[in-house]
Amino acid sequence: MSSSRLEEYGPAGAIDIFDTTLRDGSQQEGLSLTVDDKLRVAEQLDHLGVKFIEGGWPGANPKDDEFFSRAPNELNLQTSTLVAFGSTRHPGKKAEDDEVLRHLLDAGTESVCIVAKSSAIQVRKALRTTLEEGVAMAYDSVSFLVSKGLKVFFDAEHFFDGYLANAKFSMAVLKAAEEAGASTLVLCDTNGGMLPFQIGQIVGEVKAHSGIQVGIHCHNDTGCAVANSIAAVQSGATHVQGCVNGYGERTGNADLTAVIPDLSLKLNLPTIEPGRLERITPVSHHIAELVNMPPDSQQPYVGAAAFAHKAGLHTSAIARMRNAYEHIDPELVGNGTRFIVSEMAGRSTLALQAERLGISLDSGAISRAIQQLKDLEHQGYHFEVADGSLELLLRRAAGWQQSFYHVESYRVMSDHTDGGNTEATVKVVIAGERIIATAEGNGPVNALDSALRKAIGERYPELHCIHLVDYRVRVLNSANGTASSTRVLIDSTDGERVWTTMGVSENIIEASWQALDDSVVCGLLAASEKPAAAGKPCPD
Amino acid sequence: MSSSRLEEYGPAGAIDIFDTTLRDGSQQEGLSLTVDDKLRVAEQLDHLGVKFIEGGWPGANPKDDEFFSRAPNELNLQTSTLVAFGSTRHPGKKAEDDEVLRHLLDAGTESVCIVAKSSAIQVRKALRTTLEEGVAMAYDSVSFLVSKGLKVFFDAEHFFDGYLANAKFSMAVLKAAEEAGASTLVLCDTNGGMLPFQIGQIVGEVKAHSGIQVGIHCHNDTGCAVANSIAAVQSGATHVQGCVNGYGERTGNADLTAVIPDLSLKLNLPTIEPGRLERITPVSHHIAELVNMPPDSQQPYVGAAAFAHKAGLHTSAIARMRNAYEHIDPELVGNGTRFIVSEMAGRSTLALQAERLGISLDSGAISRAIQQLKDLEHQGYHFEVADGSLELLLRRAAGWQQSFYHVESYRVMSDHTDGGNTEATVKVVIAGERIIATAEGNGPVNALDSALRKAIGERYPELHCIHLVDYRVRVLNSANGTASSTRVLIDSTDGERVWTTMGVSENIIEASWQALDDSVVCGLLAASEKPAAAGKPCPD
Repeated sequence: MSSSRLEEYGPAGAIDIFDTTLRDGSQQEGLSLTVDDKLRVAEQLDHLGVKFIEGGWPGANPKDDEFFSRAPNELNLQTSTLVAFGSTRHPGKKAEDDEVLRHLLDAGTESVCIVAKSSAIQVRKALRTTLEEGVAMAYDSVSFLVSKGLKVFFDAEHFFDGYLANAKFSMAVLKAAEEAGASTLVLCDTNGGMLPFQIGQIVGEVKAHSGIQVGIHCHNDTGCAVANSIAAVQSGATHVQGCVNGYGERTGNADLTAVIPDLSLKLNLPTIEPGRLERITPVSHHIAELVNMPPDSQQPYVGAAAFAHKAGLHTSAIARMRNAYEHIDPELVGNGTRFIVSEMAGRSTLALQAERLGISLDSGAISRAIQQLKDLEHQGYHFEVADGSLELLLRRAAGWQQSFYHVESYRVMSDHTDGGNTEATVKVVIAGERIIATAEGNGPVNALDSALRKAIGERYPELHCIHLVDYRVRVLNSANGTASSTRVLIDSTDGERVWTTMGVSENIIEASWQALDDSVVCGLLAASEKPAAAGKPCPD
Repeated sequence: MSSSRLEEYGPAGAIDIFDTTLRDGSQQEGLSLTVDDKLRVAEQLDHLGVKFIEGGWPGANPKDDEFFSRAPNELNLQTSTLVAFGSTRHPGKKAEDDEVLRHLLDAGTESVCIVAKSSAIQVRKALRTTLEEGVAMAYDSVSFLVSKGLKVFFDAEHFFDGYLANAKFSMAVLKAAEEAGASTLVLCDTNGGMLPFQIGQIVGEVKAHSGIQVGIHCHNDTGCAVANSIAAVQSGATHVQGCVNGYGERTGNADLTAVIPDLSLKLNLPTIEPGRLERITPVSHHIAELVNMPPDSQQPYVGAAAFAHKAGLHTSAIARMRNAYEHIDPELVGNGTRFIVSEMAGRSTLALQAERLGISLDSGAISRAIQQLKDLEHQGYHFEVADGSLELLLRRAAGWQQSFYHVESYRVMSDHTDGGNTEATVKVVIAGERIIATAEGNGPVNALDSALRKAIGERYPELHCIHLVDYRVRVLNSANGTASSTRVLIDSTDGERVWTTMGVSENIIEASWQALDDSVVCGLLAASEKPAAAGKPCPD
């Protein structure tokens, strides 16, 4: 199949991207947005350049009302159009008397999106009304909103299930919306159960019988939301709904951060504003931050691991041939290539890493480093997640030894009588001088950290700017109960960069100490390489 | 489109599921498995009933060698066949002299999978050899392995890119493997850049020119790995490779926990052992636990949120029409419908739980238990995963107090001078008698466990049958560094059942103590309810 054959599979025109993160996306468990959050997410979406932003359901909750009332003053959208969401009128009510439609008018947007049940069984059982009334609800509601000068997107809920069971009714609902003046018929796989071949075929059949734009709205319940959206486009849909990062109820909505690059880069279709695709990674991460969901490092295109390479086999090949294991140039989507060091890594990864750190390793040193890395990883160390400890290992392989301080011993006492008291004592030697320091803490690791800082802090005031930002513990071989081996990871920062160090031991105190010790050495090492900073206030 | 039309789209026969979690899946950043972990993952995969388990790459690292040497003795696989992975011989080498192939023989499996570059540009640029040699490497390697009596899966790396650029070469490689006696031609979308329509078309073209089984191996770089695998099956592939939970390098491999239910439930194709699909959710969660990756609640079919309903949807609405927002019956995959927990739902759940344990709670006691549960969960306790601690909380809400022993105090000392020494002292009162016991351990928790057993073990000999089987630590609010709060979970067994207890504190020693203390009390409680067992040898 030559690439020119791609043309058989898709339309030539632009695809309208309709983001529903602020409406359908916010149905996700654990995702709760303030109005300020919503405004900031909308700014990001406009910055990315999606055509439509569905902002919420006016009347459904006070937050969404506030969003639509503040948006005109506080949002200065350059490329996106704001859309308010609602439903068709209630059964038996007149459109002009229906409060759902009234709220839509009050939202003050130029475009609205209304949802209508387009499955016969849903109309009968969930709405408990007749099929005739189901069709009339669609017609009346669209017609009323169009008469008020609004552009109307028509979300046909449960469309695919409905079509498979009773295509005649589902098509009648679409026909009614089209005749009433809707601009787009959006076919929704509401419970997310479809596969791409079904979506492709049904969208094609609808397209053949409709005179207006057809859109698609997919959920990821079969793991195919992205592929389903693409299949719809290849069958003629030119409007795609989804959410940034695949947020949404249950398994989420179609992930626009995958759909947009797939359409743009794989099918060469115009989607967001030209020249902005490279914004998609930062926008994805920024929105994850705003909605306070941890970003998924495995996410296609935008994930931190999307272009990360581990296996030694791959890394040496990549050095020779960029596209060997990268399906696109990561910079097209604002992401970058990253190499990960682990026991599986070959010489080339380690050599690259050392070079990046300015450490010169000869062939013998690289062999020693690889051997040590493999031995340590076999014990449970995991260097790909601990850049700080890796740097120290590489430096040591090159013959370096830290000369900041020498640890003679440390001990911790945790006494749980009446509330408890935990203290640690650290004994170090610095330039021949022996220093003993004791400190208390709210746990053994905290006490050790305090005691070490107390012992060496006077001699190394730059330590004042270095602090721990994260502490993680994983029990390895946990089936051995309390005698299991433990891996501790510590993230530290000097206000400019963050580094991770690691310790492994059957004794969690020993493992924590190794990670603490490495953390401090890495920090002092970095500080010693920029002496100009000494005496200055800490950054940040 | 009627459902009978589905038949056009797929083969009628069974699809072989080939799991590569232990090989390709372990390329995922942050995923590092010990040999014990790997053995336990393999047990889970066998329990699920996949046909093939790719265990690793013998010779590539000591872990995988150890895995294959221990597997025959320690794994008792009932349904799955273990497969060793390797590559074709090196350019210019004889197959019988190549150490990669030698390692494959040494692994001692009946089946092997070897990877060969099937893209002309990769052979020229990455292998730096001729196309003739590329084909010969495939032929010689397969032929050598087949001559040793092995069943050979042939992974055609970079197949789709290669085919689009130079189909003649890619097909020549497949032909060579087929003629040399490979059992299956597995087409790999190595850099994951394909879309379903491409996979479907190319697999169809290969299928038309091959006389043996065709397989598919997809990566998720376009967000389409599941859909791509399905497209391949619909074009005639009958062997599907992937990983549990979509583990794998970059964006991951095809997620088998979605592919298997899609094939089984949507296309009605036999996949895993009959009757075992309902094991897929527990197996997915169990493996996530083993590899210590937080499970993705949005995961199709198996995610905690896959059938969770928010959005003001009433229980009665779903009860009226189960399939309104559920594309399948969640019980088919061992998952369940979940409503976002309200206080009322909490009450009934708790009442049910108490009833199950034979604890009678009046309305006031239930209210007290709910309040306490909420307060503790706010602090970081998580009763859903700690049945033992929940039982104690419910018993206490009913007015019960444990009378086995009273803890006066405990302390731990961990001294790291010359190798280190950790000891714990526990002071308890039993029936008026004060007992002090000190014990050493290889870490603070192990020492505490030993000291507690020493202090009360004489009085409660049944403790001899109770031991810890798992110990897990999670740092909560980890951004507070070493002063973060810590949650400890301990699994214990008396040889008959397993229970989980929990502790939360800023001090990991305090948190571990709580979990230990609860563990022992639960064990003594259970033993006291079956006095006939006293004096008998431990079960198991």
